[in-house]
Amino acid sequence: MEQLSANRAFGGIQTVHRHKSAACGCPMTFAVYLPPQVADGPCPVLWYLSGLTCTHANVMEKGEYRRAAAEHGIIVVCPDTSPRGAAIPDDAAYDLGQGAGFYVDATQAPWAGHFNMYSYVVDELPALICRHFPADMDRQAIFGHSMGGHGALTVALRNPDRFRSVSAFAPITNPIAVPWGRKALTAYLGPDEAAQRRHDATALIEDGARVREILVDQGDADPFLTEQLDPTAFVRACQNGGIALTLNLRPGYDHSYYFISTFMADHIAWHAERLRG
Amino acid sequence: MEQLSANRAFGGIQTVHRHKSAACGCPMTFAVYLPPQVADGPCPVLWYLSGLTCTHANVMEKGEYRRAAAEHGIIVVCPDTSPRGAAIPDDAAYDLGQGAGFYVDATQAPWAGHFNMYSYVVDELPALICRHFPADMDRQAIFGHSMGGHGALTVALRNPDRFRSVSAFAPITNPIAVPWGRKALTAYLGPDEAAQRRHDATALIEDGARVREILVDQGDADPFLTEQLDPTAFVRACQNGGIALTLNLRPGYDHSYYFISTFMADHIAWHAERLRG
Repeated sequence: MEQLSANRAFGGIQTVHRHKSAACGCPMTFAVYLPPQVADGPCPVLWYLSGLTCTHANVMEKGEYRRAAAEHGIIVVCPDTSPRGAAIPDDAAYDLGQGAGFYVDATQAPWAGHFNMYSYVVDELPALICRHFPADMDRQAIFGHSMGGHGALTVALRNPDRFRSVSAFAPITNPIAVPWGRKALTAYLGPDEAAQRRHDATALIEDGARVREILVDQGDADPFLTEQLDPTAFVRACQNGGIALTLNLRPGYDHSYYFISTFMADHIAWHAERLRG
Repeated sequence: MEQLSANRAFGGIQTVHRHKSAACGCPMTFAVYLPPQVADGPCPVLWYLSGLTCTHANVMEKGEYRRAAAEHGIIVVCPDTSPRGAAIPDDAAYDLGQGAGFYVDATQAPWAGHFNMYSYVVDELPALICRHFPADMDRQAIFGHSMGGHGALTVALRNPDRFRSVSAFAPITNPIAVPWGRKALTAYLGPDEAAQRRHDATALIEDGARVREILVDQGDADPFLTEQLDPTAFVRACQNGGIALTLNLRPGYDHSYYFISTFMADHIAWHAERLRG
């Protein structure tokens, strides 16, 4: 593992690292914020999964998470959204291929063998974080935005003993029912409905997966709300499944980092409560 | 004036605008954050001047000023750092020409006629802000970073009745004595020492300019500290001039937006106190 940068911020250190990923078969870059409290021992880990077109850098630069992470003593890890590079398959569209991994393990050509972002964020990167950072892996939480909100919800629902809490900003909650998700899940997983449902938060809950509670913030001026992000089915699934969903519909907010950064501190405080002790 | 974007953030709105600048002889872009309090009437204005290579966008995306601006009810205006465009003179170096206006009115070829950033930020843009935004122009403050810290200090020292307060992150405090400043001020103003001293915060104070107090934050791991930012002469000038300087030397911090964003809320709170009433 190679350290690409380190900058002191809010009393802690924002670092960026690159390593050879076995899951993705290429070098992968990720960001880690270490709060000042790591001087006193291991800190809990909050995973942030990013949305379409993003790398680790977007939320690191625009997400405004460091103040709250430093206040609450939480390590924030921000992975990339897909394998990358000239040798990696890609698609001209922004919503498939590089920058659009959708947090699945692809089974279909040309994606299989590299597009294993599920294994990467669930297995390979946590093992690396555990080995190299002062992380208390018994206290983990996860959140994300849009495609990364989809990732956070599905990863948490499939690993309920791993994460104490899960939240999302404007998540894709029902990918099998919307254009972004149908396109990507079919490309990566083929038409197999059962395989696709294992990567759909709404379907996972319908099929019996459970977490205790979920926090979601969604802007009502989000241009993707109607076509890609409609939370109706997800809300119903949570109700039927007995999951305590807090859905904050935010008047006037869009899909951008201006929206994310506004509610970032609320989400981190919410996770911090659940990561205590 | 054309509005390029508007995004709700922290209860207010972050906007970006373009207008034809008479001072610069080209279209100029600037950012304005309107806090939620503008709903109740005009709010004070805090000017942020950026550093070398920056546009209005860098601090808008990475500066993390909106939370504090919304809390204190302050409008934040972020101008560009120079005229720009194919028809505008430029230099291959990052520290001269486009992105490096140094907040002076150039008198030398090829810069004269376009590189009038002093007039732009002191006269033209304030008039535009006053005309188009709910700004209380009787309550203004100014701050900036690096070259923009130089801009904030010199503009405030030359207009002490305009600004209630001035602060800076890692400012160039004595440009006539350091490579960045000597190069730029000589290119823009020629070898005329008197003209250059009117754009040097330390020299202005030595020559009698006064403000009541100044707040400066400076990282001690800033790679430019020794060669470009050494505050020694500025500290001495403030002492001799009876200016209450607070210089916070911050261990481990560098010259980046990670440094700026860490202390942004402190600076805005400091200005807010002085902008009250």
